[in-house]
Amino acid sequence: MHIDLSGPRRAARLLADMPREALDSILLDLADATDAAMGELLSANAADLSRMDASNPMYDRLRLTESRLHDIAADLRHVAALPSPLGRVLKHSTLPNGLDLTRVSVPFGVIGIIFEARPNVCFDCFSLCLKAGSTCILKGGRDAEQSCRAIVALIHGVLSRHGLPADTVLLLTSHEATAELLHAHGDVDLIIPRGSSRLINFVRENARVPVIETGAGVVHTYVDRTADLDKAARIVLNAKTRRVSVCNALDCLIVHRQQLGALPQLCAPLAEKDVEIYADDAAFSALQNSGYPATLLKPATSESYGTEFLSLRMAIKTVDSLNEAIDHISRYGSGHSESIVTEDAQAAERFLRSVDAACVYHNAPTSFTDGGQFGLGAEIGISTQKLHARGPMALEEITTYKWVIRGNGQTRA
Amino acid sequence: MHIDLSGPRRAARLLADMPREALDSILLDLADATDAAMGELLSANAADLSRMDASNPMYDRLRLTESRLHDIAADLRHVAALPSPLGRVLKHSTLPNGLDLTRVSVPFGVIGIIFEARPNVCFDCFSLCLKAGSTCILKGGRDAEQSCRAIVALIHGVLSRHGLPADTVLLLTSHEATAELLHAHGDVDLIIPRGSSRLINFVRENARVPVIETGAGVVHTYVDRTADLDKAARIVLNAKTRRVSVCNALDCLIVHRQQLGALPQLCAPLAEKDVEIYADDAAFSALQNSGYPATLLKPATSESYGTEFLSLRMAIKTVDSLNEAIDHISRYGSGHSESIVTEDAQAAERFLRSVDAACVYHNAPTSFTDGGQFGLGAEIGISTQKLHARGPMALEEITTYKWVIRGNGQTRA
Repeated sequence: MHIDLSGPRRAARLLADMPREALDSILLDLADATDAAMGELLSANAADLSRMDASNPMYDRLRLTESRLHDIAADLRHVAALPSPLGRVLKHSTLPNGLDLTRVSVPFGVIGIIFEARPNVCFDCFSLCLKAGSTCILKGGRDAEQSCRAIVALIHGVLSRHGLPADTVLLLTSHEATAELLHAHGDVDLIIPRGSSRLINFVRENARVPVIETGAGVVHTYVDRTADLDKAARIVLNAKTRRVSVCNALDCLIVHRQQLGALPQLCAPLAEKDVEIYADDAAFSALQNSGYPATLLKPATSESYGTEFLSLRMAIKTVDSLNEAIDHISRYGSGHSESIVTEDAQAAERFLRSVDAACVYHNAPTSFTDGGQFGLGAEIGISTQKLHARGPMALEEITTYKWVIRGNGQTRA
Repeated sequence: MHIDLSGPRRAARLLADMPREALDSILLDLADATDAAMGELLSANAADLSRMDASNPMYDRLRLTESRLHDIAADLRHVAALPSPLGRVLKHSTLPNGLDLTRVSVPFGVIGIIFEARPNVCFDCFSLCLKAGSTCILKGGRDAEQSCRAIVALIHGVLSRHGLPADTVLLLTSHEATAELLHAHGDVDLIIPRGSSRLINFVRENARVPVIETGAGVVHTYVDRTADLDKAARIVLNAKTRRVSVCNALDCLIVHRQQLGALPQLCAPLAEKDVEIYADDAAFSALQNSGYPATLLKPATSESYGTEFLSLRMAIKTVDSLNEAIDHISRYGSGHSESIVTEDAQAAERFLRSVDAACVYHNAPTSFTDGGQFGLGAEIGISTQKLHARGPMALEEITTYKWVIRGNGQTRA
């Protein structure tokens, strides 16, 4: 079955002609409409929830509540209030022949988002895409189908009152639609998968349109020979336990062999949070009989490294040098967020330069990798690739640019 | 057969630790080595040329001469003298909690280039990648195999004298190597195809690593109702005939119906260059018996639009309005370079805003789409996609960035 995906392109041309204030007023109206439509949205969500076992870890992600919808409405107002990412002059020059040359930020056009069970993605992605002048195609998971339909119907109502077609946001729900979306060269400018690494791998293998990979984070913190142990303990605790289900949560503590004696002190706060540790031989010996609960201490296996735990579990790797730490990260990291704790400024600079990741930290936890924390405003995801956007992607990162050349009949010799 | 593509990644880590001046001195030494090795390079090239029919249009692209090699050496010195694209601070802020946040330009790592018969691509791409701190994997066409081998051997000699491994530039020549390169997720960060649209389509269909599409240009110039005819004639002549084999050469002249009377005047300079015209009915009538050589005037067919001619041929399309011109470009353009000739400032701004292309021109020919002309220095290609780089791609466009966060033990609440 062929699905016509050309509508959002036509709608994008209408958006390109709208003043930016008009886009903001759509978001403000949608915020009000969301507050007013709580009943319908919650009952559609209840229908989805009724089809899922409450013990499923996705259940909480699928769930909407009055308070979450209020937060969503507040987020919409926040996005409306952010500066527009469009029309920024990125470069400007007048060439010797008088040609006026401007590189200016413009909308992508059509952005496809593929996600799983979180219905709030419909609001997030629609609002950020619209603010950035792009239409969007949302492919949600079956689990969230009723919720997504209700949200998109609400958005369509608001769009229609502003004279915009329903194709400004197109919702796809069938499994076949994913394949069509991934092959929609010409109709879609960019696809952003939001979800598990399984989803991201599937998209990478099958997409024929440009993709920005987001989210998968195998995250390390390296406690160097000269680390301040108080800082290190705080940083490790924060990176591991602040929120365990986020992509920038710590997965593997790398420790310099000369710090093994301090490992019990470093890990003590983790025990209070019931963090299960998978330690290599040296770290296991250092922690055994040190007070770390025996039930939470396991030997590392080959699966312990390169794993994104998304839970209260953490690996430990012992190294003999900074170089070995960098090699370990190069082999097992996913290019998301990596941190060094050290009082040695040279070691810090070498780590920051040599580690190939979106965000590299010195004496700070990877917990900060977040568009809001970085002062970028709302974010659509965290890119783990190097093309176009790296790390937190906010409004500027979902625009492209064009070169505008104004002349007066000049020709090239 | 599996080809090991992991070497360039290791070499890229060595490059990341080298001072920028060291990279420049490699390029200067390579320029000298090129001047000194003319004999070997020309004799390898002669072997390739002997296997190709001299009437093949690729023959000239394959051909190296003493003068071309001197130009190449000069280009290498020019690239060495350009400012480094690395280490640019793209954003900097100190967060309220004291964290120091910098977004800084860094090398991609490993860049793959797939090209056809032009052996000079080895010099161009190696020099730009090296200057941008990246290693490269070059997949050349079979036609240029001996030439590419000789050039890369020359580069390897220079690299070795600077203590860098041969994997800093890896040459692949077998057809199977292309498939391996396109699937080398993890070993390769970016692939740039340079060549025909057949090559670019193949890469898009088969790549599992990020790609920047370059080159294919179906280019229009729209002569509006209020165009100044002198400007229009000069602009069309320059865009069509300055160099016919380049991607920014004019393919289709769009003319407002009210300008049909002026079409003979507009086209007269093209006749002197023997430009063959494929005109729609209205334009055909306007040109017939107007002095335009009958042998050079043909009726347009469905193939006349959306074709990149790369030769002394051009289509003409008549429209009733600016909107119709924009629609035609939206349907047939490739997002490369598009121009409007008009004295109506409002029409110009609407065209510049609504036409979705890398470079949009007012009263200037598309001939200017070129990194050198735009003041960007040497260019590696002209991107026709919207992700990462659009239009001329020079040194800055083949870098990525990372976020560097320096703290003092701060944690996130």
